[in-house]
Amino acid sequence: MDGGLDGGVARRIVAAIKERIHSGLHPPGSRLPATRVLAAEWGVSRTTVTAAYGQLIAEGYLHSRPGARAVVAPGVGAAVAPADPPAQGARRVSAFAERLLARPQAAPPTRSVRVADFRYGDLSGADFPVLAWRRAVNRACLRRPARLRYDDPRGSAALREALHGYLWRARGIQCTPERIIVVNGSQQGLDLCARLFLDPGDRFLFENPGYALARHAFAAVGGVEIPVAVDAEGLRTDALHTEALAGAALAYVTPSHQFPLGGVLSAARRRALLDWAARGGGVVIEDDYDGEYRHGIAPIPPLQTLAPESVVYVGTLSKTLSPTLRVGYLVVPTGLERAFAEAKRLTDRHAPLLEQEAVADLLASGAYERHVRSVRRKNADRRAVLLAALAAELGDRAVVAGTDAGLHMVLWLPGIPTDQESALVADGLAAGIGLYPVSPLYAPNGGLGGRLGGERPACAGLVLGYAALTEEALCRGVAVLAGVVRGLR
Amino acid sequence: MDGGLDGGVARRIVAAIKERIHSGLHPPGSRLPATRVLAAEWGVSRTTVTAAYGQLIAEGYLHSRPGARAVVAPGVGAAVAPADPPAQGARRVSAFAERLLARPQAAPPTRSVRVADFRYGDLSGADFPVLAWRRAVNRACLRRPARLRYDDPRGSAALREALHGYLWRARGIQCTPERIIVVNGSQQGLDLCARLFLDPGDRFLFENPGYALARHAFAAVGGVEIPVAVDAEGLRTDALHTEALAGAALAYVTPSHQFPLGGVLSAARRRALLDWAARGGGVVIEDDYDGEYRHGIAPIPPLQTLAPESVVYVGTLSKTLSPTLRVGYLVVPTGLERAFAEAKRLTDRHAPLLEQEAVADLLASGAYERHVRSVRRKNADRRAVLLAALAAELGDRAVVAGTDAGLHMVLWLPGIPTDQESALVADGLAAGIGLYPVSPLYAPNGGLGGRLGGERPACAGLVLGYAALTEEALCRGVAVLAGVVRGLR
Repeated sequence: MDGGLDGGVARRIVAAIKERIHSGLHPPGSRLPATRVLAAEWGVSRTTVTAAYGQLIAEGYLHSRPGARAVVAPGVGAAVAPADPPAQGARRVSAFAERLLARPQAAPPTRSVRVADFRYGDLSGADFPVLAWRRAVNRACLRRPARLRYDDPRGSAALREALHGYLWRARGIQCTPERIIVVNGSQQGLDLCARLFLDPGDRFLFENPGYALARHAFAAVGGVEIPVAVDAEGLRTDALHTEALAGAALAYVTPSHQFPLGGVLSAARRRALLDWAARGGGVVIEDDYDGEYRHGIAPIPPLQTLAPESVVYVGTLSKTLSPTLRVGYLVVPTGLERAFAEAKRLTDRHAPLLEQEAVADLLASGAYERHVRSVRRKNADRRAVLLAALAAELGDRAVVAGTDAGLHMVLWLPGIPTDQESALVADGLAAGIGLYPVSPLYAPNGGLGGRLGGERPACAGLVLGYAALTEEALCRGVAVLAGVVRGLR
Repeated sequence: MDGGLDGGVARRIVAAIKERIHSGLHPPGSRLPATRVLAAEWGVSRTTVTAAYGQLIAEGYLHSRPGARAVVAPGVGAAVAPADPPAQGARRVSAFAERLLARPQAAPPTRSVRVADFRYGDLSGADFPVLAWRRAVNRACLRRPARLRYDDPRGSAALREALHGYLWRARGIQCTPERIIVVNGSQQGLDLCARLFLDPGDRFLFENPGYALARHAFAAVGGVEIPVAVDAEGLRTDALHTEALAGAALAYVTPSHQFPLGGVLSAARRRALLDWAARGGGVVIEDDYDGEYRHGIAPIPPLQTLAPESVVYVGTLSKTLSPTLRVGYLVVPTGLERAFAEAKRLTDRHAPLLEQEAVADLLASGAYERHVRSVRRKNADRRAVLLAALAAELGDRAVVAGTDAGLHMVLWLPGIPTDQESALVADGLAAGIGLYPVSPLYAPNGGLGGRLGGERPACAGLVLGYAALTEEALCRGVAVLAGVVRGLR
């Protein structure tokens, strides 16, 4: 038996634990691993580990508590923090990494907002179809195959088949399941497009203002942004004939509901954009991030349906089910299936199977479309409450835009100059509301300049997301906002 | 009411469906969407849709069936397949895409193997801890927050905290949760390293033979491979002093169990490799893909524990739980947390929350470590059966290597020349077994050449994965293999 401290193993365990304590890994007061766990890891009996713990207790390193695990005694351990030399030295990183690190650090999410957080992109936990989802997940858990193996990089066959039907029914998109690539949320779809279509120095057309994380994805691979102005009809296409834009490799657009300003791309502009793509061989990335939400307007078919060979369609479940699911999908032009599949394989093999099977189940059973109809109604109600509250509280001191679709609107405040936006945000936070200004969504470096490139507005603007808020929070939030706005004048 | 065909909407629905039928999207015999679904999408009453369907039935486009959905009539529809012009034209893709497409196309998995598929990387579905997993997933489903929002790009706080404890207990790794990045399987970890450390033209050291998808990840971003030979003690470090390797940006190693040859990197070589990294500023990527599986050898601490500032540690749950989960993690050097977090955010925001929370639950409850002990025993049994069967059936006609750790071994067949490997694989498949040769895991283009770069062996070799096979399948598979080998001589 090696039960006593005579055993060399017990001594080594003692030495190892002392070292952990000295290094600060086990701070005073923390619990040690259960004897069973350590015994299994060292391949010894629990008696041996118990003996080692006994010795440490005897030496004053540990305190024992009846019926509980030993804890590290106060006063022992590292005098300084764990030894992680802060000097990084001359670690060489890639140009991609340099570009990432040159970006301004993202603000941490404001989790302490008391009254109402108007952050865009969040959904209400109460809207999530908990029961249907649990049923679907449980069915997916039970459908375990005899052999667990890597799946098709394009995604599960069942989900691509289900999406194929859904995309036709909901968005009028015709495609074979072979052209659908399941991705970990639309962000991965954008990153794959960036990697497959852009080399460093290649130019890309980008809505100005536009969706920051898409801009960053294209810029991080070395793409050079050409900002193009947007107005109430979406991307302005009158600049597309200029020489600066002729040979660009890629154009990113949100035609169903321009982010953030909310315009719906007009038919004439759709044609102009696709003509640009056909002329120069550029690819159009259509981000249909909230195409499910239309308020009082008829469904408008995606660009993809007009020119399936020029458009990569990007869809997501982040705005209907949950942003934490990380399920999105691409419809890619014929001939590019293999490039996307290989890129997805190299990137992460394939999307996790459990979510994919659960989503396929929801789509096949009709539960997903029922859920979409339900959240569409709920968000239409929220939108109506927000519009009414804004009209009542702010009246003609505010101009509301981009309300035809989606889960957010833009609030322009003509009396407040742009340089007061940060004061507006700070005052809002102090009063208990989370506000998100429009300005940071403009291109950092002018671009075309002037009218065609997208001028920053002369007054402050806010992107108001409403999908995560109750009607009460919306009303109270707008009342607080009105007070903050009055205070700034 | 717009219930009749007098209504413009019904006419438009009729036209739209006809167009779908003509384009071949709805082939003869296929069912049309339920009236309820179409009604919701068009924002009209079901009566309107029923009227539209009635018209289409009257015109002969559809057949109605009592109590069921209408189906497309035979003989209507597209004369040719759906119009997807096959010509891709001059779509310009990036250098990354060109490199991807230049790779030989991956062979489709052999799903029809009758007797035994020795494919490496697959696990047995019977080993999966179904009950514990369902409980953990259910708890994760119930823990739904009030607000659904994007999470920390490094991963859920609960999972990183749980991994922090696990990595210390199981692998002796000291790190703060801030230095852990949860990724979608180790492949994403490798891809992030490739993007952050390599620019086109940068050299990387790579085990020869080595893990193909890691090689491809580094090569796809433009890295230039320097193959380094491996032997029974893992990577040969005698070449590390040569000028060719001095300024390389990155070295990829599998020190716990070299893939595929199975050596465990010796202490002296660990030191030599880390000296190389310290001298030239290169980073070492340590892929600890199957560190949980040791057979009769003591746990060997990862390289990361010797030089946490030079090593990115890559871990995975693909070899203990399931490759379809897509959960892996990195431990990154101090100072690189932000680069990895930003890269992960741009890549796909963060890993899906459901799996992360379920895995955190398994780790915190001790269920994960219980499971690891259980599958370790099961795979040790499989290994023993396979070794006994190989000895009995092939005797001294085969040499077995790399059996100290992991879930595979290498079988060298001294009597069969390398150029017979493909005949071996084909004969195996015909006889009902899936075989995977060693040769494709060698660097495609020599590199250093000769001894130091890793010479292809003169005889055929197979990578035998055993984790997905029953003991009966292992025995029958080896018997068939012996017959195939005899037939080739």
